[in-house]
Amino acid sequence: MKHEGVLIVLSGFSGAGKGTIVKRLMSQYDNYALSISMTTRAPREGELDGREYFFSTKEDFEKRIEENGLIEYACYCGNYYGTPKDYVQKMLKEGKDVILEIELQGAMKVKEQFPQALLLFVMPPSAEILKERLTGRGTETAEVIESRLARASEESEGIEQYDYIVVNDVLDECVERVHRIIDCAHDAADRNRAFIADMRRQLQKFSQKDTE
Amino acid sequence: MKHEGVLIVLSGFSGAGKGTIVKRLMSQYDNYALSISMTTRAPREGELDGREYFFSTKEDFEKRIEENGLIEYACYCGNYYGTPKDYVQKMLKEGKDVILEIELQGAMKVKEQFPQALLLFVMPPSAEILKERLTGRGTETAEVIESRLARASEESEGIEQYDYIVVNDVLDECVERVHRIIDCAHDAADRNRAFIADMRRQLQKFSQKDTE
Repeated sequence: MKHEGVLIVLSGFSGAGKGTIVKRLMSQYDNYALSISMTTRAPREGELDGREYFFSTKEDFEKRIEENGLIEYACYCGNYYGTPKDYVQKMLKEGKDVILEIELQGAMKVKEQFPQALLLFVMPPSAEILKERLTGRGTETAEVIESRLARASEESEGIEQYDYIVVNDVLDECVERVHRIIDCAHDAADRNRAFIADMRRQLQKFSQKDTE
Repeated sequence: MKHEGVLIVLSGFSGAGKGTIVKRLMSQYDNYALSISMTTRAPREGELDGREYFFSTKEDFEKRIEENGLIEYACYCGNYYGTPKDYVQKMLKEGKDVILEIELQGAMKVKEQFPQALLLFVMPPSAEILKERLTGRGTETAEVIESRLARASEESEGIEQYDYIVVNDVLDECVERVHRIIDCAHDAADRNRAFIADMRRQLQKFSQKDTE
């Protein structure tokens, strides 16, 4: 079976460890590609076009929107951010499993355009542990932690829209788990229609021969 | 996360190795239970009630049909064969992943009553290899092999109704593959609604505290 890649949406609460999971997937396995977002904000020092972001003008970005060239996009603080469709499709065709690290709203737009996309939601083992992790970082003010927890509470409304939930308790196990879920998705009947059709044709040929 | 078991339907062409896969799953892992069929045919020598089959009278069997006590059933050669619902439900509640080794028609009936059932179809790597395997057994006449291939051709019409296809090329790998697919199914959001709802309640409590 030769597979096109799987399009993966990885979402999760702030503090659930999404970013770390993505980094580990990219470094431990060679089947993944990370989708690069496009933005109209100016590059910061050290950022490279095509690495951190694809940097674009407002005019080009809006042209892409018109031409349906973005899987999803949003506007934050007067700048556009979005996922270019052509790059993702190219990677999928090359057989790469492409990871989008985006939030619920974007995830739903991806599912509309790529019904076979695999939606994963990363969760802590409990809300208590999420709070501990946010507090334990020691880098955030109480106010920031509170707003993150309030945001998590909002985000938790959409979890049932995802295909799988992954509990991030022990990081190594969680990364392995995410990898397995994606790996198994390759065997979905939906993704193997050509293989099934080919098997059917071969069997029909045998049956015809046998009755000749 | 505490899970109820997953109900698994395992189908596949004759000669694809279903029976061997089920035996290996049962002996290698301790999370599986095999559904035991009920039949009205007489026990053969060495067969035990509750091991090979649950043996039943025609009257009792028909009463079960009326009471919707069978997940699926069929009549072959004047005898009923079916899958008792209560036994399967008991095993699922105990957290066992219950395997039904049945064919397409039965599989569709299972899916109707248990929409979360996981439907797996075992295939050989190619039709050519299926033919070789059937021939290689040396126990079947050319006529039997032909009728099996014709039957496989018919069965291949329904493969798209399954959730996953599993190619049985190297047996060990195939068994591991089937086990992984079932294992990952436990993380489906659909199967974790209680866990998600509980997380939501906890997060809401934090948010309320924070705004007090």
